Amino acid sequence: MTRIVIDNPEDPRLDDVRDLNRSDSSGEGLVIAEGPLVVSRLAQSRFPLRCLVGFAPKLDAYIEEYGAPGCPVYEVTRETLKAVAGFDMHRGLVAAADRAEPLDLEDVIASSKTVVIMEGVGDHENIGSIFRNAAGMDVDAVLLGSGAADPLYRRSVRVSMGHVLRLPFARFDGGFTTWQRGLQQLAQKGFRLVSLTPHEDAVHLADAMDGAEKVALLVGAEGPGLTEHAMRATHVRARIPMAPGTDSLNVATSAAIAFYERQRSLRG
Amino acid sequence: MTRIVIDNPEDPRLDDVRDLNRSDSSGEGLVIAEGPLVVSRLAQSRFPLRCLVGFAPKLDAYIEEYGAPGCPVYEVTRETLKAVAGFDMHRGLVAAADRAEPLDLEDVIASSKTVVIMEGVGDHENIGSIFRNAAGMDVDAVLLGSGAADPLYRRSVRVSMGHVLRLPFARFDGGFTTWQRGLQQLAQKGFRLVSLTPHEDAVHLADAMDGAEKVALLVGAEGPGLTEHAMRATHVRARIPMAPGTDSLNVATSAAIAFYERQRSLRG
Repeated sequence: MTRIVIDNPEDPRLDDVRDLNRSDSSGEGLVIAEGPLVVSRLAQSRFPLRCLVGFAPKLDAYIEEYGAPGCPVYEVTRETLKAVAGFDMHRGLVAAADRAEPLDLEDVIASSKTVVIMEGVGDHENIGSIFRNAAGMDVDAVLLGSGAADPLYRRSVRVSMGHVLRLPFARFDGGFTTWQRGLQQLAQKGFRLVSLTPHEDAVHLADAMDGAEKVALLVGAEGPGLTEHAMRATHVRARIPMAPGTDSLNVATSAAIAFYERQRSLRG
Repeated sequence: MTRIVIDNPEDPRLDDVRDLNRSDSSGEGLVIAEGPLVVSRLAQSRFPLRCLVGFAPKLDAYIEEYGAPGCPVYEVTRETLKAVAGFDMHRGLVAAADRAEPLDLEDVIASSKTVVIMEGVGDHENIGSIFRNAAGMDVDAVLLGSGAADPLYRRSVRVSMGHVLRLPFARFDGGFTTWQRGLQQLAQKGFRLVSLTPHEDAVHLADAMDGAEKVALLVGAEGPGLTEHAMRATHVRARIPMAPGTDSLNVATSAAIAFYERQRSLRG
């Protein structure tokens, strides 16, 4: 392991963690992990580590718990890291990795029994929460429709507690001619397609999955929800009953309840 | 209705919405609602409105949809409101109300079949989410243990979408000698007490409520969760099964799943 003390915030070896608040949701930036737990998940992921940067005691503690990473380690002071990252990073540990090749959609589908499909979830916190909850409740993969935001964006990585780095995901619009054709192919592969919607004419979520061997749960964007177009291509529309005069649940909360119900429907 | 145009940010009639980012979680501040939906919920609540402040078109739209409020209405420009509130309030509509007398714990309990008890949830966003989800899924009331944060804090009001203003809540430590004695009294009133915990020896959430007529769901602080002390005073410890190597769910997400399961257990 190379461990180097860097005092000069201008040192180009720190460029990977420079100006971290600069918005980059283009899907082109590096993958950034903060704090020991998420850094350890990045180190164990398919994304190749480029560097680990941190305060001396944070580096010591990390390496003691998780072992030395296979990348250069840069030791910096709080002031140096603040000058580089652009804010006071009190957790004192940050790692950067390259993006990996996207996973093959067919492979992801072939090895999954439960997937969640996001039609157009654009909020990075919701994306992160959905990955965290999916990983926690045995969802095998996340498929991202055209409107879905980049799960590797820094805030999504953080909110997901690093699960965007572990849970397989693939762009759902890449491998098929159209979204609707994609759903048809999933159905042909044996997936029961379940739309989540607050509409009153939908069936209760508890009656929607019925212990199907394979399930794809569709969730839509904050606000508008799933398009009629997408829902029409699914087997069933499912709702979580809401009290009169209240609002539909946040998309990540709805999805978490559906993951729970899916897991519950598979109990022995 | 009194509607007055105010140009001077120093005008004391705007003091109720001054410096809104100033942290006040002491439980002493005014109740602040932002945006038409939450303002309308404040206007319909038990909290006495003091003033409604907004941009001219936002006031027009609000009054057309919800009617004139029973309080002074102050019309301001975006610049004036920014100078008063301390930030650019793009929604352009804010109302302030006095705190009302706390509800009587015995009354709240007597009129409830499902309650959620927060032992020590200190995060204002989680508090807000729990109220929003509770209102949406037919929970009748929220009981706040000693460590729980103020639900009327501005951020909780916003995240709850105003449901902290509608859903009855009471301090759980006020009416009883001790927390544990409070739980005993709830049990004597026929409530089945259910602790939410990630511990592996807890029963599956689906087996914990069993269609009981009255249920009290206990949730603990972010991180440590419920204390052993509290859990010991409940009838059953319930868990949402988690995949190996993942983290327990966020407290608001866990609670939402429990609310869903409670509602589900009451289906005909």
